[in-house]
Amino acid sequence: MTKHAVDLAQAYRLINPGPVALITVGDGAEDNLFAAQWVAPARVSPPLLSVLVGKDHFSWPILERSGVFGVNIPEAHLVDAVLGCGRTSGRNEPDKFGRFGLSREAAITIKAPLVAQCVANLECRVVFVHDMGGQSLIVAQVARAIADLTHFRDGAWQFDRGLELLHHLGASRFGVLREVVEGRLEGLTP
Amino acid sequence: MTKHAVDLAQAYRLINPGPVALITVGDGAEDNLFAAQWVAPARVSPPLLSVLVGKDHFSWPILERSGVFGVNIPEAHLVDAVLGCGRTSGRNEPDKFGRFGLSREAAITIKAPLVAQCVANLECRVVFVHDMGGQSLIVAQVARAIADLTHFRDGAWQFDRGLELLHHLGASRFGVLREVVEGRLEGLTP
Repeated sequence: MTKHAVDLAQAYRLINPGPVALITVGDGAEDNLFAAQWVAPARVSPPLLSVLVGKDHFSWPILERSGVFGVNIPEAHLVDAVLGCGRTSGRNEPDKFGRFGLSREAAITIKAPLVAQCVANLECRVVFVHDMGGQSLIVAQVARAIADLTHFRDGAWQFDRGLELLHHLGASRFGVLREVVEGRLEGLTP
Repeated sequence: MTKHAVDLAQAYRLINPGPVALITVGDGAEDNLFAAQWVAPARVSPPLLSVLVGKDHFSWPILERSGVFGVNIPEAHLVDAVLGCGRTSGRNEPDKFGRFGLSREAAITIKAPLVAQCVANLECRVVFVHDMGGQSLIVAQVARAIADLTHFRDGAWQFDRGLELLHHLGASRFGVLREVVEGRLEGLTP
């Protein structure tokens, strides 16, 4: 898979449909990753996104002290790895990458690694953290984004070459996004 | 379509996969609705969700002064109405419900109406608003949720009876969620 830089003005499109993500954290000394469905765009320009992280997560102190994280979008064939990353903690499984057959890919603007097998990766810097008690609602700016041009072209996900995105339904079940419908604006100026 | 109450402990599952939503606002005197993709769960219990609203939206002052809104989940056959609600403003189109063939359904715990044609509806009360300049990042608590039991059973979306959810990709394009894959936890205690 060859990934290319995504124009930052279009970076929000990578997460716009709401796919599950693998969040990578790292400060150069230690790293980890976990699955997160609660990620959403927060602004188009500059590109901001929000993500919720439990403060009891093994990854939280790494994320807090480094101020950076990666958002990695898996295709459906990685469903077992996604579920595994969501169900295990870095406390008990010190190398979740190795455990679930994932490889680190070096980021350019952050110390956290990216997931090589993912179809898109966003390098994010924390802008602010809203304390929600047991959780932190993080808003971060996307500093760099890359994607496989087979599936992300013209600033949008394209499903004509077999792309399948995962959306967590609950428990071990995921919905698969792999088709497109187009809305029509009858009587409206587009 | 007959909708039943959803256990509030499972209400987050209605929005967990990240479908596009129609947000309804109303204070008893005026109402409106708009399409939003940037909605995400924020806590399981009590059920919280986050949504981003532009302060220049016609709906924003109604939402701000009433402190309530509805989150309505459309099926794919409503794609034209969803696009239309996203592309028009209550300023120019005073009755977007009528314009796009949607009907108001009375909520029980809030003054904002719900969308009768949607497969699920969540009645939400604002808990806090984080000012992001031109936008407001709202966190709200779900006070009541209802869903069509044909498609939401056992606390989860079920796709065995033709359910299709919409996920906005950009412009007038939407991904369709209509299939399920199950992750396997080999060697892990579920």
